[in-house]
Amino acid sequence: MARICFLVLSVVCFAASAFSAAADQALLNQAQQVLGPLPATMVSEKNPITPDKIALGKMLFYENRISTDGTVSCARCHPISLYAADGLRTSIGDSCKAVPRNAPTIFNAASQVGEHWTGSRADVEDQAKEAVAVRVVSGMPSYDVVKKELGKIVGYGPLFKKAFPGDNDPINIDNYALAVGAFERTLVTPSAFDAFLKGNEAALTDPQKAGLKAFLDTGCAGCHSSAYVGGQMYQKFGVAEPYWQYTKSKNIDEGRYEITKNESDKYVFKVPVLRNVEMTSPYFQDGSVDSLHTAVWIMGKVQLGKNLTDQETGGIVTFLETLTGEIPEDAVKVPILPPSR
Amino acid sequence: MARICFLVLSVVCFAASAFSAAADQALLNQAQQVLGPLPATMVSEKNPITPDKIALGKMLFYENRISTDGTVSCARCHPISLYAADGLRTSIGDSCKAVPRNAPTIFNAASQVGEHWTGSRADVEDQAKEAVAVRVVSGMPSYDVVKKELGKIVGYGPLFKKAFPGDNDPINIDNYALAVGAFERTLVTPSAFDAFLKGNEAALTDPQKAGLKAFLDTGCAGCHSSAYVGGQMYQKFGVAEPYWQYTKSKNIDEGRYEITKNESDKYVFKVPVLRNVEMTSPYFQDGSVDSLHTAVWIMGKVQLGKNLTDQETGGIVTFLETLTGEIPEDAVKVPILPPSR
Repeated sequence: MARICFLVLSVVCFAASAFSAAADQALLNQAQQVLGPLPATMVSEKNPITPDKIALGKMLFYENRISTDGTVSCARCHPISLYAADGLRTSIGDSCKAVPRNAPTIFNAASQVGEHWTGSRADVEDQAKEAVAVRVVSGMPSYDVVKKELGKIVGYGPLFKKAFPGDNDPINIDNYALAVGAFERTLVTPSAFDAFLKGNEAALTDPQKAGLKAFLDTGCAGCHSSAYVGGQMYQKFGVAEPYWQYTKSKNIDEGRYEITKNESDKYVFKVPVLRNVEMTSPYFQDGSVDSLHTAVWIMGKVQLGKNLTDQETGGIVTFLETLTGEIPEDAVKVPILPPSR
Repeated sequence: MARICFLVLSVVCFAASAFSAAADQALLNQAQQVLGPLPATMVSEKNPITPDKIALGKMLFYENRISTDGTVSCARCHPISLYAADGLRTSIGDSCKAVPRNAPTIFNAASQVGEHWTGSRADVEDQAKEAVAVRVVSGMPSYDVVKKELGKIVGYGPLFKKAFPGDNDPINIDNYALAVGAFERTLVTPSAFDAFLKGNEAALTDPQKAGLKAFLDTGCAGCHSSAYVGGQMYQKFGVAEPYWQYTKSKNIDEGRYEITKNESDKYVFKVPVLRNVEMTSPYFQDGSVDSLHTAVWIMGKVQLGKNLTDQETGGIVTFLETLTGEIPEDAVKVPILPPSR
């Protein structure tokens, strides 16, 4: 009996010391090589952010009147209440048109290699500009109509002037995109993981550290890298095996091939940002998978050819939950829009 | 020249003194007889509000996942950004179904004689209960399905328990309605007019006071009475002349006749609350009129048989603008919803 107790105690002690100071430091070093803490805002040289631009951009983000059926704003597919994704498999645009892919969160989204699942848009400004004048999203037929409709809401006049003081005719689609982009560039959500990366080793629990180690050792960070834990490269979805064998996707999406028509781009997608992934089910470009556990297991299988155990998958999920961050105070406040009249 | 100057000066003095202390007091007395300042919350004996109920209700108000196409929440037709109306002539429900009437603001809406334009719902709780399980709004086919879908979002379990501590099986449609109703009962927006009604005569400018006087003397407050400036009675729309001759309504809405089948209820609607009316264009049950000036003129014409001058209409509008109030701090903050998983 004494011997058994000793054995149990040893195991407990071993577990408790699994993350000794030295191991913590080693894990931190390993993490810092491929990941990093979030910046305060996502800076762009071409779109320096100002308070007036952000304020206008936030209003335009909520503006449902610049859509043909009057129900679609950026917030339709990216509601702050659901961590700026919409909870749908694939989104629904103006007049119930089907948007082809799942809406990714726009939190921490403005420093990626490209926007949309296929990188079909250069940056958040380019994405905002396109979305507001595309039939399937806003229903608006052209930039001219967007400009005209914006002009009708007289309260926007002074706000565009203030946000773009050097501009004689500031209500235009490029300024619309710059304003919305400026707002999006503030949507950074630091979490416990950032505190850890900055050297506060107590910011993660032992199971979370074990999960981080599993994430790194399994090879997830080979693609899901940077402060954003993704968004920096394109990769074939299904390196080891076709993805649809596991996602049970109803339609096979050819990814970037749609744009480039290069055979080598077949099934290639942007590696998504994993910040707040816990909060943004369902997963993948078609939202075909509801459970984060299942999504992680599929990634191991089709990207790395690994059949992860439940424990390994669970550990990685435990780490991913540390990426759920705090939404900026200003972003949680709904802007009040100028009346129609 | 001296005589002309004297005359001009006299006119100016007369205008300046148009609202002398005595006139202010008389106007205040007149206003207090039919109108009143808003309460802090809109109390209901059957639904006492608690912080937990309000917090849950606000989340459910934003919950788009309890709809068949996944895009409809209470906030769809009552976005806080547009003073809790949606800016559309008539609203659009789940899967693009046409909602038959214009969405009224839900600010200051919970102490009315009934809800909806026809009073077809008893109170805000009854309205919330019906809207979440009606095909044309949420698309949900039954209360059972609503209950089941709510139960799937596991994060709601503890929140319903906290809001309804005495209840063994708290996730149900009645508690849903009580929670949403509790949130709505906090949506009170005091304005400059409330300060005036409480005795601060400087809270309104002279033109605003003149507008208030015109509003009272014209007879508007005969129906638009109480702290809510409406919502306390039903009235025929078109007492003097048929409304559709002036609103240019495409469809003639028979109002409460639809429910009661009494001839005397033909074209009878609830007198709408005028709080924040400046911010909630378009107007009337079918949203057929964009301009508040035009709406006021039509009301004079068809309700009172008066052909108001531009100046009279403008004066009344100037008063109505004083009813634009401050949205409660908590209501402006978007709640973060539990993830799907």
